[in-house]
Amino acid sequence: MLDTPTKPKPRSAPESLLAELAARFADRFSCAEAVRRQHAHNFTWYDNQPPDAVVFATSGAEVQDIVRQCAAHRVPIIPFGTGTSLEAQLNAPVGGVSIDLSRMNAILAVRPQDLDCTIEPGVTRTQLNSFIRDQGLFFPIDPGADASLGGMAATRASGTNAVRYGTMKDIVLSLAAVMPNGELIRTARRAKKTSAGYDLTRLLIGSEGTLGIITELTLRLHPIPEAIAAAVCGFASLGGAVESAMMAIQAGIPVARIEMLDALQIHACNLYSKLTLAEVPTLFVEFHGSQREVDEQVAQFEEIAREHGGTDFNFASKAEDRSKLWQARHDAAYASLALRPGAKAVATDACVPISRLAECVLETKADLDRERLVGTMLGHVGDGNFHVALLADPADADEIKRAKGFIERLAMRAIAMDGTCTGEHGVGQGKIHYLQAEHGAALDAMRAIKQAIDPDNIMNPGKIFAV
Amino acid sequence: MLDTPTKPKPRSAPESLLAELAARFADRFSCAEAVRRQHAHNFTWYDNQPPDAVVFATSGAEVQDIVRQCAAHRVPIIPFGTGTSLEAQLNAPVGGVSIDLSRMNAILAVRPQDLDCTIEPGVTRTQLNSFIRDQGLFFPIDPGADASLGGMAATRASGTNAVRYGTMKDIVLSLAAVMPNGELIRTARRAKKTSAGYDLTRLLIGSEGTLGIITELTLRLHPIPEAIAAAVCGFASLGGAVESAMMAIQAGIPVARIEMLDALQIHACNLYSKLTLAEVPTLFVEFHGSQREVDEQVAQFEEIAREHGGTDFNFASKAEDRSKLWQARHDAAYASLALRPGAKAVATDACVPISRLAECVLETKADLDRERLVGTMLGHVGDGNFHVALLADPADADEIKRAKGFIERLAMRAIAMDGTCTGEHGVGQGKIHYLQAEHGAALDAMRAIKQAIDPDNIMNPGKIFAV
Repeated sequence: MLDTPTKPKPRSAPESLLAELAARFADRFSCAEAVRRQHAHNFTWYDNQPPDAVVFATSGAEVQDIVRQCAAHRVPIIPFGTGTSLEAQLNAPVGGVSIDLSRMNAILAVRPQDLDCTIEPGVTRTQLNSFIRDQGLFFPIDPGADASLGGMAATRASGTNAVRYGTMKDIVLSLAAVMPNGELIRTARRAKKTSAGYDLTRLLIGSEGTLGIITELTLRLHPIPEAIAAAVCGFASLGGAVESAMMAIQAGIPVARIEMLDALQIHACNLYSKLTLAEVPTLFVEFHGSQREVDEQVAQFEEIAREHGGTDFNFASKAEDRSKLWQARHDAAYASLALRPGAKAVATDACVPISRLAECVLETKADLDRERLVGTMLGHVGDGNFHVALLADPADADEIKRAKGFIERLAMRAIAMDGTCTGEHGVGQGKIHYLQAEHGAALDAMRAIKQAIDPDNIMNPGKIFAV
Repeated sequence: MLDTPTKPKPRSAPESLLAELAARFADRFSCAEAVRRQHAHNFTWYDNQPPDAVVFATSGAEVQDIVRQCAAHRVPIIPFGTGTSLEAQLNAPVGGVSIDLSRMNAILAVRPQDLDCTIEPGVTRTQLNSFIRDQGLFFPIDPGADASLGGMAATRASGTNAVRYGTMKDIVLSLAAVMPNGELIRTARRAKKTSAGYDLTRLLIGSEGTLGIITELTLRLHPIPEAIAAAVCGFASLGGAVESAMMAIQAGIPVARIEMLDALQIHACNLYSKLTLAEVPTLFVEFHGSQREVDEQVAQFEEIAREHGGTDFNFASKAEDRSKLWQARHDAAYASLALRPGAKAVATDACVPISRLAECVLETKADLDRERLVGTMLGHVGDGNFHVALLADPADADEIKRAKGFIERLAMRAIAMDGTCTGEHGVGQGKIHYLQAEHGAALDAMRAIKQAIDPDNIMNPGKIFAV
């Protein structure tokens, strides 16, 4: 197991607080170990550090009450959506109360005229998309898991469509959030643009629950494109696949998705998702627009791919074939896990300027091989963002040590290339130690903001910053 | 003249500080009244409140030195780019030192492979575009004036292309800034996406110099589209023009620009820019893409416009005709001013959800007429953002009073429609009093951040927040 940082002083919820919460929330309050451990589930090698209790909130007003009660005792609060974050954002290293927001899952308003909607934080991305599909609308941000939109905002999530549609930072118009003092704020109104003061919306996005708890989101929506074409293209080399992605972006082709999967990942997907793809480095691509626009984009992309050793250009023109393809992509992490039963899967991500992507991917692949580690590589290469899903034997101390070293080198390699130690997974506990290298003096400004908004450090302590 | 707020306690630069700065900066330091007044130039009815001195900085290190010297005396610092901000962002209500950044105008790097560049803050938008044009790139954000990019980031500027390319918040990848403690921070690296901590980039964008002084910007660039088509379309009514814009956005047409100008504004442009347009409510539109894409977009838009009383659909297919058209649009404020020589021009802006745009524009037009005010209306209607350029006689106290009432009602009308009191001009001194209505408790969080980053309130005091 990874070393947890020097044991911080516990700030567990006192019996009196637990009794108050139990009385108020009845069967929506739990101290059961299984429930507590499930609410600290993580995909790192950090220990499971369960909260003292879990409360299932059903309204912003309830969240306010819980925050006020915890604040009165200086007890930490850890917000929980679907439990799919990847850097131990949900651990409770000094104890505290987990607020489970998954029951706050109402879609409050959909406004086709304004191409926006207002929802509660527990609504998931597939729930939202099912709801709005009949109105000809879709919500593009799609991390692998069917995450809650509150959690996606909190971790500044993105996914396969970000290359065209942006990330959570681009798609959120406004948030409501309960701040550490119990006040419910609204960060902005619904105008598409504003210059009226500090951008609290973007400050809360990516703050991982350390500044406030998101209780409502207003999101932009997009019209479903008239035409969609998806394709799979195998390559002779990993470099050829990555360079094709780089060229497509540099040529200004408005690709909607451009995903790289290495040969091992394709092997895993073939097994897990019952596909029959050639087990070579591969790009999954998708184009959106009118039929003519899509045809043009496909032709431009095919030319680039062929120049870089692309073969086997297969189209999924039927909607069900496309769904199967993207479902396989979204299930890639589970597919990897199935490659080595009993292994612990640890997902890590990094993001670099696209001109450095091929270099970063190839150095990372060489590092993986040199360290004799099993891991698949895949990523949102149009953004310069890629993942490694390591499969390590938790009982093998040497392998764990090599895996830790690999993850650290990847973070530092990305930073040295003017990139970031995390493109979309967030900091949580897993990436805390790389922020100094990445941000330098800017980290002091982040700390000053944290201290100003949350002076008692009750909001998800030990995430982004060490406890 | 507008009432300035209750006279705050002056915090003028002491002689010792002025002497130090004069010794260090020699002919790049000035206490001349004309220079000081020019550095507090504003487009509101607030008095010109000149700084005590102006220093022309030439490097980030110099900015650090000036900030440290001023901080030691708790003397305010007001950053200056091109002096084209519209809400009295440059006034020095309690004195202080203006740092003129216009000589920091080097383009440090252009990276076509990454579609980005790094520049100093005094670079203007036209300077940047001239420099990158040969590489097939352009920078889309275009407020009316040829503003400095540092100033555009500080006020979260946008302009005519924002409907397609976003605002400064979307196009800045990273900033370097000198903070009130004299530290030079870099807000992010160059990756297109990051989840590594708080979004200091977006926090500084729109902070109007109240948190730090931007000394370097890394900006996204776009490939110049293969085909561009611009058109002018007159309408039988203002409502028809606005509704056409709403429909085009709702239909998902990726218009690059869609600008509304009312009949009086067209009259002004005809006179000032020597055009011969029909003096009716008009849309200026532009489409970007491949030739086929552009043709499709034009056809779709023409159909919508015709259904809403559009006539006189004239194309500017030659580059020089397009330039003339958009130059006229950018000169619209000067054109308005020329309508009433001797009048004071006051520009105000608001932004609402697009479903409320026609209602907001028509109510505002009725208010203008009811109050017998002379003012042109124009705007970036694809974003729900519009401007009124009022022309008032500064010697006519009753007219000034009516104009002030009009501006306040417009701000409150936009807020009541779930919009904002400023879409792109910023708060400065002019919009301070509307922020409570717009933000409520969120304003406390903004104040807490200001206090944490700038405890002595030396960074542009009296802007966004009252002194």
